[in-house]
Amino acid sequence: MVMGFIRRMAIVGSLASILAAIVTVHPAADEGMWTFDHPPTAAIQQRYGFTVTTDWLDHLRLSSVRFNDGGSGSFVSADGLVLTNHHVALGQLQKLSTEQKNYVSDGFAATSRSEEMKATDLELNVLMSYEEVTPRIVAATQRANAQAALDARRAEIAAIEKESLDRTGLRSDVVTLYQGAQYWLYRYKKYTDVRLVFAPEQQMAFFGGDPDNFTYPRYDLDFAIFRVYDNDVPVRPEHYLKWNAKGAAENELVFVTGHPGSTDRNDTVAELETLRDVISPFNIQVVKRRINVLRQFASGGTEQARQAAEITFSLENALKAYTGEYNGLLDQKIMNKKSADERALRDAVGRNPEWQKAYASAWDDIARAETANRRLYKLQRFAQIRGSGFAGIGLAIVRYVTEVKKPDGERLNGYHDAQLPSLQFSLLSPAPVYPALEEALFADSMQESLEELGPADPFVKAVLAGRSPKDAARAIIGGTKLADPAVRKQLIDGSETAVRQSTDPLIVMARAIDQILRDLNKRVESEVTSVESAARQKIGQARFAAFGTSVYPDATFTLRLSYGKATGYPMNGTLAPYKTTFAGLYDRSASFDGKPPFDLVPRFKEARSRIDLSTPLDFVTTNDIIGGNSGSPVVNRAGELVGLIFDGNIESLVGRFVYDDTTNRAVAVHSGAIVHVLRAVYGATALADELERPR
Amino acid sequence: MVMGFIRRMAIVGSLASILAAIVTVHPAADEGMWTFDHPPTAAIQQRYGFTVTTDWLDHLRLSSVRFNDGGSGSFVSADGLVLTNHHVALGQLQKLSTEQKNYVSDGFAATSRSEEMKATDLELNVLMSYEEVTPRIVAATQRANAQAALDARRAEIAAIEKESLDRTGLRSDVVTLYQGAQYWLYRYKKYTDVRLVFAPEQQMAFFGGDPDNFTYPRYDLDFAIFRVYDNDVPVRPEHYLKWNAKGAAENELVFVTGHPGSTDRNDTVAELETLRDVISPFNIQVVKRRINVLRQFASGGTEQARQAAEITFSLENALKAYTGEYNGLLDQKIMNKKSADERALRDAVGRNPEWQKAYASAWDDIARAETANRRLYKLQRFAQIRGSGFAGIGLAIVRYVTEVKKPDGERLNGYHDAQLPSLQFSLLSPAPVYPALEEALFADSMQESLEELGPADPFVKAVLAGRSPKDAARAIIGGTKLADPAVRKQLIDGSETAVRQSTDPLIVMARAIDQILRDLNKRVESEVTSVESAARQKIGQARFAAFGTSVYPDATFTLRLSYGKATGYPMNGTLAPYKTTFAGLYDRSASFDGKPPFDLVPRFKEARSRIDLSTPLDFVTTNDIIGGNSGSPVVNRAGELVGLIFDGNIESLVGRFVYDDTTNRAVAVHSGAIVHVLRAVYGATALADELERPR
Repeated sequence: MVMGFIRRMAIVGSLASILAAIVTVHPAADEGMWTFDHPPTAAIQQRYGFTVTTDWLDHLRLSSVRFNDGGSGSFVSADGLVLTNHHVALGQLQKLSTEQKNYVSDGFAATSRSEEMKATDLELNVLMSYEEVTPRIVAATQRANAQAALDARRAEIAAIEKESLDRTGLRSDVVTLYQGAQYWLYRYKKYTDVRLVFAPEQQMAFFGGDPDNFTYPRYDLDFAIFRVYDNDVPVRPEHYLKWNAKGAAENELVFVTGHPGSTDRNDTVAELETLRDVISPFNIQVVKRRINVLRQFASGGTEQARQAAEITFSLENALKAYTGEYNGLLDQKIMNKKSADERALRDAVGRNPEWQKAYASAWDDIARAETANRRLYKLQRFAQIRGSGFAGIGLAIVRYVTEVKKPDGERLNGYHDAQLPSLQFSLLSPAPVYPALEEALFADSMQESLEELGPADPFVKAVLAGRSPKDAARAIIGGTKLADPAVRKQLIDGSETAVRQSTDPLIVMARAIDQILRDLNKRVESEVTSVESAARQKIGQARFAAFGTSVYPDATFTLRLSYGKATGYPMNGTLAPYKTTFAGLYDRSASFDGKPPFDLVPRFKEARSRIDLSTPLDFVTTNDIIGGNSGSPVVNRAGELVGLIFDGNIESLVGRFVYDDTTNRAVAVHSGAIVHVLRAVYGATALADELERPR
Repeated sequence: MVMGFIRRMAIVGSLASILAAIVTVHPAADEGMWTFDHPPTAAIQQRYGFTVTTDWLDHLRLSSVRFNDGGSGSFVSADGLVLTNHHVALGQLQKLSTEQKNYVSDGFAATSRSEEMKATDLELNVLMSYEEVTPRIVAATQRANAQAALDARRAEIAAIEKESLDRTGLRSDVVTLYQGAQYWLYRYKKYTDVRLVFAPEQQMAFFGGDPDNFTYPRYDLDFAIFRVYDNDVPVRPEHYLKWNAKGAAENELVFVTGHPGSTDRNDTVAELETLRDVISPFNIQVVKRRINVLRQFASGGTEQARQAAEITFSLENALKAYTGEYNGLLDQKIMNKKSADERALRDAVGRNPEWQKAYASAWDDIARAETANRRLYKLQRFAQIRGSGFAGIGLAIVRYVTEVKKPDGERLNGYHDAQLPSLQFSLLSPAPVYPALEEALFADSMQESLEELGPADPFVKAVLAGRSPKDAARAIIGGTKLADPAVRKQLIDGSETAVRQSTDPLIVMARAIDQILRDLNKRVESEVTSVESAARQKIGQARFAAFGTSVYPDATFTLRLSYGKATGYPMNGTLAPYKTTFAGLYDRSASFDGKPPFDLVPRFKEARSRIDLSTPLDFVTTNDIIGGNSGSPVVNRAGELVGLIFDGNIESLVGRFVYDDTTNRAVAVHSGAIVHVLRAVYGATALADELERPR
């Protein structure tokens, strides 16, 4: 299952999120996550005979929605309905649930607008405009020293974002594309009153559970429906996608818009080797360990299981993805292809004296920085507040009150003026906190840090302060008052001194580690980030110089367009079909005698006679997607919605590094399946009518 | 799909059929194709708590049937019904069909005994007794010279078989087990009046066609039902399997009896390397080439397509199996395991001075012989009459009249007294011959021989006699009268002189190549077969000496018992269930929009509402099987029939060399599926009643 990319960034750590790369070869058939300023018009025309127009692109862009906590979606009705995946909505479903009412397991269906339930802390973005700001960044960053250049670039980016926010009132993000060969200013309309309209039971959304996750053939109803409000009134979006319940025919051209989180398609071989030898094994080790803790916690009772469910789901998903990616890195064929591509670009650079002078050193610069990265990675990896996210709130507050006093350009990333509204929205979220769960995760995280870094490590010493990891967790998580958003608000709104004098144990701990982590971060920046940042920019420019502009940038959780077709593929000795049907759902459940995770909720057992078993359920396409594309609409030439991306097949997990159209497939829920179950199973006729209403 | 092993032997050539080996390691869980004289009683008791008794074994053995053209089956009613696979019956269905009536595509259902249709040339065997004859063979073969020992052994085997046939009237075969460390005399009751009672449409038996072949999950009704007659009356077998329509529960212990054709589990590494470097690539090349010829022939019209269907099916099946086996040989992990196993046995031999003296040279002897084999293989491979089998009939007749005049012990293998009844049965078969198809296959085979061996090769010269392959094929196949069984009978019954003077072009050609092939065969025997035969015997004995008797011999198309359980397995990132249901059949068909080979015959479309979609259709077990096991019964502890083996999964194709219980699965039709469709789809109530009649 394709997940939001956020969880990957959180786990991989900040280094991975800035691991970037170069574009090395011309895209394969249907390859690419294209920016809207640079759509693959010629390729689509040539391969599919379809003419992409500006109006058509605008319609898709303005119908597309970013779920700011890591996912995609689209407007699908005149009254502001937004379609996304159940697993994108899962965090909000979990936050809305209580011991008494479990919307994750039981689903939710509003029978009137008054029953629509406001999501706890959900921010949606729609990309309104974009413009290139490369010249301004380049002009501001003409420094000889890499660290100085990095600092200057951050300051300039913060300035551009603030100017734009002040002028337009729109969320304004400067995006680094093509490894720093281009910078773009993206402006988003922001929605924070988003209400839950419908979610099926998780078991039907995630039928087949962890085993079927990231595989195909598949039988999942992984959808959820929200409605966006503004001033307590449903928004009436200028653009939304018309629902086409017929779906896509075999080999039909389809498009996906959405927000792929990150790819490493253009990493240098040196970077991939670090990923293979150091980062991936750590990822897998950490996630496995945490899943064990969660399983133990969940075995304590129904309520414990409910509390642990979402994060367990997310980590199991991550483990399967990491394992697939790691296998890709271990595959010598893939590494050989990467080496050959890199060699081809370096040779091209070498043949041109001007390019040679400007770009040739970049690969060796990165290789040198990777040596430092290998040395620093473990330190940086385990000197972090990890766990579920709650334990990091103290540090965010300590930094918030300090950073906001500095000139915008000098602040830590994440605390710039233009970033503050979204930061506050998440820091003040009223989402429930489960202390026992947080304590177990924090204790395990610190136990691991102790084992990996030793008791003499400054970070470990600062957190534990002579206590065992368990005792420290009990004292810190058990003693903090920060679970209450009002307490957090008080601290954020109060003075720096108030935070400095707080005796809340989470704040005390945060103060003790703040400088240690800043120093560590500075070291990584100076030895790795700044060097690689400059080198990547060169490689990105070399790529443009050598191969022209028919390339796409690595994914950056910004809006992208991909094209492809609905088609099966060779699988495990036979063929996977381009679609599945409801008959297959009942087959797979009966094949396992209905045992979890292949059980059906009672509603679906009872409804079997009302379901047309030959109705398509899921389908696959060649579209090039990755985590973050979850919830993306699949649209046809007419710009109508024919499906809902929710996963990639197991063969697509190497898609982080390389795309292969023979087996890489995106997996989507069929548009017809959604309205069919709304009518035949859930009796949600009004909702289905709203989705299918003619424009 | 697991096929009869005959086709493999035919294509691999005579060398492969005597490629044999040593048993190197203790069997893994559920591993092994065990002889009935040496069942794995202790392992079954220990792993499953089930006590195997002599009565229970006798019941299974006497209920089991060998299809002499390469398959297995079982008695399943008091009135002599025999259950096997549709694809085992396919050759007979093809022979019974005409341009007007196609029982392959349309199926067949006798509504009364008088409608039951006698199979053209089907011989069934039931194993009545077995006894070890090793001492007698060993005594007769004490010769210093390997070729002399081989000749003496053949003569002694022929003598034992003839004595037994004369004394008991039963078909008597001496079987070489454990690579010649043991010899056993097997006696079979023989049935040649076998009548077709029921066959579904091939599309339902082989739903999913070549893509789904050798894969799972699967949705095939690969069964056919014959009735055995004796003196025009149905036989009433003393033993037959009671039908249990409930099938096997998940993880239930089940047994398979049947006739696995051949395995290379105990090949030395030198032999496997020849297989990998020489034989497998040739197999794949030849089969691909022939399939192209068949496709071209079939494109000529409906009747041409009908004529070519069965052999095309068989070659596509072979190609998929060869490809899987070849991939296994190319898998360094498998080769490493084989090397380690061999090293372990050689080390054990080396540590015991007596064993060292008796056995140690064997591996180097084989390696030396394999060098000769690599040199001779191509010559031997392409100096053969190949094609569909018909073109070889001339040679069989020429040799028949010569060989039968010699003392039994001096004849070519296949022409011994004890073998003559079965040989005559097949030589005089009234099965239809399709001259245009035979001509196309023969021409292609000779074109290939010409390309591989060159125009100066004696075999090529003798066949072509200055003509092009096409012209030779037209003259020989177009001109022969041997398509008529009466003409064949006349020649066989006539004098050697009559055959020597015949001007039939197929006989003329056979005379021209007879001595060339005898000489070539002698060369292979002297340089390869005889050396390896002696060496293998030593390795087999070393294996017994080092590891005791808890081992099983390589498959030899003799009756074997395997045990295991019904259970799924990890597949392509997820889990394959232990069974499938009828819902899955409709899902898979609809998933491909009903396109061939995923189309349903009209009868199954109409019957959907009458079918209970949750009825199990196929299922998988850990039983260790291979081609030749097709049609084998799957039985439970009570000795009741719960399924019908028809295939292995794609992961089982390396089973020729190594068994791995984590992924190796046998695929079976569920007993409940068969009676359900007989009743609900075909209206064959009487037949279903007969199958389910209480004893």
